Formats: sequence, C-alpha cells, structure tokens
Amino acid sequence: MVSSPSLAPAPAAITIAVDCMGGDHGPRVTLTACRAFLERHPQASLLLVGTSAALGEFSHERARIVPATEVVAMDDPIEIALRKKKDSSMRVAIQQVKDGAAQAAVSAGNTGALMAIARYLLKTLDGIDRPAIAPQLPNIKGGATTVLDLGANVDCDAEDLLQFAVLGSALVSALTGDESPTVGLLNVGEEAIKGSETIKKASLLLRTAAKSNVLNFYGNVEGNDIFKGTTDIVVCDGFVGNITLKATEGVASMIVDFLKIEYSNGLFSKFAAIVSYPVLKALKKRLDHRRYNGAALLGLRGLVFKSHGSADDVAFGYALDRAYDAARNNLLDRVRARIAHAAPLLARPQSAAPADAASLHV
Amino acid sequence: MVSSPSLAPAPAAITIAVDCMGGDHGPRVTLTACRAFLERHPQASLLLVGTSAALGEFSHERARIVPATEVVAMDDPIEIALRKKKDSSMRVAIQQVKDGAAQAAVSAGNTGALMAIARYLLKTLDGIDRPAIAPQLPNIKGGATTVLDLGANVDCDAEDLLQFAVLGSALVSALTGDESPTVGLLNVGEEAIKGSETIKKASLLLRTAAKSNVLNFYGNVEGNDIFKGTTDIVVCDGFVGNITLKATEGVASMIVDFLKIEYSNGLFSKFAAIVSYPVLKALKKRLDHRRYNGAALLGLRGLVFKSHGSADDVAFGYALDRAYDAARNNLLDRVRARIAHAAPLLARPQSAAPADAASLHV
Repeated sequence: MVSSPSLAPAPAAITIAVDCMGGDHGPRVTLTACRAFLERHPQASLLLVGTSAALGEFSHERARIVPATEVVAMDDPIEIALRKKKDSSMRVAIQQVKDGAAQAAVSAGNTGALMAIARYLLKTLDGIDRPAIAPQLPNIKGGATTVLDLGANVDCDAEDLLQFAVLGSALVSALTGDESPTVGLLNVGEEAIKGSETIKKASLLLRTAAKSNVLNFYGNVEGNDIFKGTTDIVVCDGFVGNITLKATEGVASMIVDFLKIEYSNGLFSKFAAIVSYPVLKALKKRLDHRRYNGAALLGLRGLVFKSHGSADDVAFGYALDRAYDAARNNLLDRVRARIAHAAPLLARPQSAAPADAASLHV
Repeated sequence: MVSSPSLAPAPAAITIAVDCMGGDHGPRVTLTACRAFLERHPQASLLLVGTSAALGEFSHERARIVPATEVVAMDDPIEIALRKKKDSSMRVAIQQVKDGAAQAAVSAGNTGALMAIARYLLKTLDGIDRPAIAPQLPNIKGGATTVLDLGANVDCDAEDLLQFAVLGSALVSALTGDESPTVGLLNVGEEAIKGSETIKKASLLLRTAAKSNVLNFYGNVEGNDIFKGTTDIVVCDGFVGNITLKATEGVASMIVDFLKIEYSNGLFSKFAAIVSYPVLKALKKRLDHRRYNGAALLGLRGLVFKSHGSADDVAFGYALDRAYDAARNNLLDRVRARIAHAAPLLARPQSAAPADAASLHV
C-alpha cells in the first residue's frame, strides 16, 4: 500500500545497545539473554551498558561493554531518572542510538523513565506529537495483535489516534513484511455512530487516511477483537489500553489459578493433572507472555524497545530479537516514509496541539 | 457505614415483571426460567409480558400474563423502540414497575432500547444525572466484582463516577448485606497522581465521600484488580468498562479455545481430556458467565435488570433471582438513602450538568 523501504538483507552489522541493569533481575537475566542472542544471530553485535562491577566478567567477540555508573530504579520518579541520574545505564544505552553507535536500544527498566529519557534524548519525529508504546498480544489465530498506545498517553485526541495507526502500521510492516496490515479502532461497538466524540472523529480521520492509501483501516473493533485477531493493529488511547491489558492479564491468571485449584482438588484430579501435563504445557506455551515480550516505543528519532520488568532470560531474548528484527528491517525508515505519506492528514490546527510532556504518567 | 433500610424479611408479595419476548431465544427460554423461578421462590409472583400467541399456554397460580402486541428486536434502533413500539413487551414490563404492579422488571432485550425506555418511563432519581449498567464479574476469591458503568455512558466526568460509586454501593449492600462494600476507581496505576484529569478529580471526590462516610473508598485500582477481587465495586466510565468487559471475554474464550485445540491434538491428549472431564467441568462452572447474568440498571426510580441477550434458561434464572433479591432487600430505598447522604457531594455546578440523553449509544 505505502511504498516502504524494501525488506533488504540485513546490513553487515546491526548493533543493539542493551541496558543490562534494568528490570527486576538485572545482569543475571540480561547477560544470559545477551549471550544466547549473540549465538542466534551471528551477524549481530551488542553494546552492553552497565556498571563495570556488574558486567566486568562478560566477554564475547561481538559484544563491547559501555560503562555507566548509575542505575534507574524501578520505582524512581521520572524526574529523578531524567534529571539526576545522567549516567544511568538506561540513558547511556539510548545515547548509543542517538550517537549512531547502535541501531536500537533495549531496556527492562521503569517504563515511564524509559519513555521520558528516550523522548528527551532522541526527540519525536516530525509529524508525531506523542510517542506511543506498542506491545503485541497473542490472538486465537496463533499470531499477535499489536496494540497501541499501552500506557504512555492517558488523554488522546483523534489526531493522536491517527498517528498511532501510522506508527503501528510501520512497526507491523517491519516485523512481518506485510506492507498493508489492517488497523482497527477500539470502540464500544463496530458501528461508526458509536463511541465518544474523540472516537467518532478518529474514525473519520482513519477512513480518510485509508482512502489516501496511508494505511489499511478495517473499521471500529471491540475489546474481544484484540484476541480474535480481527485486525493486525488495534489503536486506542493509553488509558484504555493500559486498563485493557491489565484486565486481560488478570482474567488469564484467574483462569490459570482456577485450573490449578481444580486439578489439585482430590486424588483423581491430581491424576488427571499428571495425565494432562503435556496438554497443559502446550497451553502454557501458547499463552506464554514471554513470546510477546518487547514493546516498541514508536514515534521517536531512534528505535527503543521495552522489555517487561519481570522478564526472565527467555523473555528478554524475545525483546532483543524484536529490536533486532525492527532494526534490520529499517523500521525507522518505514516510519518516516509512512509519516511523509500521511503528512497532509497529520497536520493539525496549531491551537489543538497537545501539551507536550504532560501525559508521561505511566 | 450509611444507615440503610434493614434487610427486612421479604414482604408478603414481591412481583417481578418479565419481558418474555426479549433476548435471542424469547419465550422458549424466558418461560422455562420463569417456571423454575416460581418453584424456587414460593412467595414470589410474576407478571409475564408478551404476545398472547407466545404466552397463551403458560399457566401458574402465581403468574399472570400481561399482553403486549409488539416486540423490540435486538437490532431495533433506540428511536424505533422508544417512539414507535409503544406496546412492546419491554415497555409494558417497565410500565408495570412504574405503576407499582411489580417491584422490578427483567429483560434480555436490546440494551440501548431497555435503558432508553427505562429512563423515559421511570426517570432518573434526584441527584443522579445518568443511570448506569452494573454487571458482576467473577473474581479469584470465588466471589463477584460489581463493575459500573458498563456501556451506557461513554463520556463521563468526575461527578458521574462518584454517582456510580454511590449507586454501586447501594446495589452490593442490597445483594450481599454488606453495608460498607469497598469501592475502587479504575485507573492506569494505584497512585493518586496517575491518570486523566477526570480520574484525578474523581479520586478526590471519592476521598471526600469516604471521609463523610458516604461510601468506603479503597483507592485507585488497575484492570487486574477486577479479577483479583481487590474491591467489591469497581467504578469506570462506560467506554472503558465496555471495552474491558469485551476484552476479558475475548481472552477467556481464547484460552478455552486453546485448551480445546490442545486436548484434541492427538490420541493421548484426547485420553487426557476424558480423564480431565470432571476438572474441566468444574473449571467451566467457575467461569460460567450464566451465574453472573443480570446487570442492574441503576439510578432510576424503579428497578430494572438486564439479562444477556444470549442467556439460556439457567442464565435468565440468575437474572430473575438477582432482581428478586434486589427488590426484597429494598434496593430502591437503599439507593435513595445513599443519595440523600451523599447529596452535598453530588451537587454540581449547573453549567457542568451533562447533556441528558446524548450518550445512549450502547
């Protein structure tokens, strides 16, 4: 649909900068994942950012240690992370992207701090007011649905939602090779007349964008469509997105808990659990959120990926892979190309421009 | 906390008006459920509303047929249901409540039409701007979390959310006998500084209400808290509520589908499925949405309960039971008492009053 940079073979050297100190487990998890990543991708290089004490013993011919003296804590306020810890591993990792030493950065640290630092150092792309966070969720088709925004922007207007749709389309194109992924607008019903004023306006903007071949708008979708895989991309504001994500995590873990309770309820059930072990293992694999780890921070002049804070080495490895795929498939060029194509639609009346940094609460 | 009407023994005769024509299955389901309901509750009476042709053969000493010549279709626009079908079974059932012939009405029909007709005939209570829909969702504690609003109001302000909290508290008190149920405000984080401007203001209002003993405010909660059962009541606007409900239904059915796929994947898995049958049946029962059927329409001068359109006779029976429990535990008096107690907080500047019927889109 949009003429995108082709899926060229990977350049000779893609380098990913890794904040090795971030997340609940720090280097114990990130370094294990980094070593496995280097084995999987013989052409990739890593910049391992962290304190010398924590990373000192790591050695690999395609990895280089970049020292940082500070660490952003998971509960650090954004202000502290941004203004006080200027030599944090998170910030130094993103600086590598800014300096062109790496094509993407990955961190499992504090989401709010990561977004704030990334935004401060890299700046948003022309035509984009607010960067968005775009994770992938599993769907019944066995694939993944990319949902954005998931937490960075609690108050969004229709133009923001259009921008998210453009950004999400570029991401899915880069990760899957599908140049025309479908976009759904999350709403309380499929009919165009339903929803808040913002949603109705966004629906109109998305229809116009589709007519101009800027993106492939399917129409309004409902909450269950995320898991049906009705569209490749689902667009919503960060408030709805965050609550939806957490609610679905909640219901999934409730079901798993119920299964555990029932399978341990009496001898026969325990026998059934043993017999069912392979089945339950396969179910667990299907639902394994680790496979979906690695959310893109989109709309910035550089690639940054957020891993879940509680990620283990397998999960962190998926985030590294996602960042690598995005970088070698030229995600940033794709985003720029799509924004250029969408430029006439993305322009908004000056008076309606949103307050810039007001919504970084998540 | 609030001095509520006591849980008096049921008055000699509680009568429920039933829209027997509503829902996907109509009288086949509703009449079966009504007969079982009458057996379960020897003191209850029913007014069965529908066309003579459909209900003609039903006979029970505590049931009376109230004829209606029209039926609101599941896809009828609200305007048609409200303005054209003035002798619909849905409308006649609600009219029974208005006339004092019944203490509550139950319908499985079109939600938007039901809310519009209920609001038109019964009117909202003083102090309430917008009625809300309050269903119950299962939680890991084995109980139910009452969530409102779930679809009636897409654009809500802070005062609306406070009203929902007052209404939900009265409902849970009536259904459980707990005079001080906990209220959570659905947000993107537990911290009071997070969220949209509306949420921050609502959080302040709810804190003030709690200090005045109007309700028992726990604080902000996140999406997963609905299913953890962190609070008895979760308050949100209808947009977020509807999307969250549908997303969680989506993820639950995805998990069940995955289980089915894995259990039919090869001979051994099929054997495991047979062995696991009792366990899976118990799981199904825990997740059985039928047990949670029957959402209250709150904030009106009369009790109306909405059954899911696809309800079978068991599910519809739960909706009847819920309406019966609410009526015999004086839900309407409880709502009035709580509103009176909250009156100083519920008053809002006249200029800020919301457009009255603008948001009945769901």
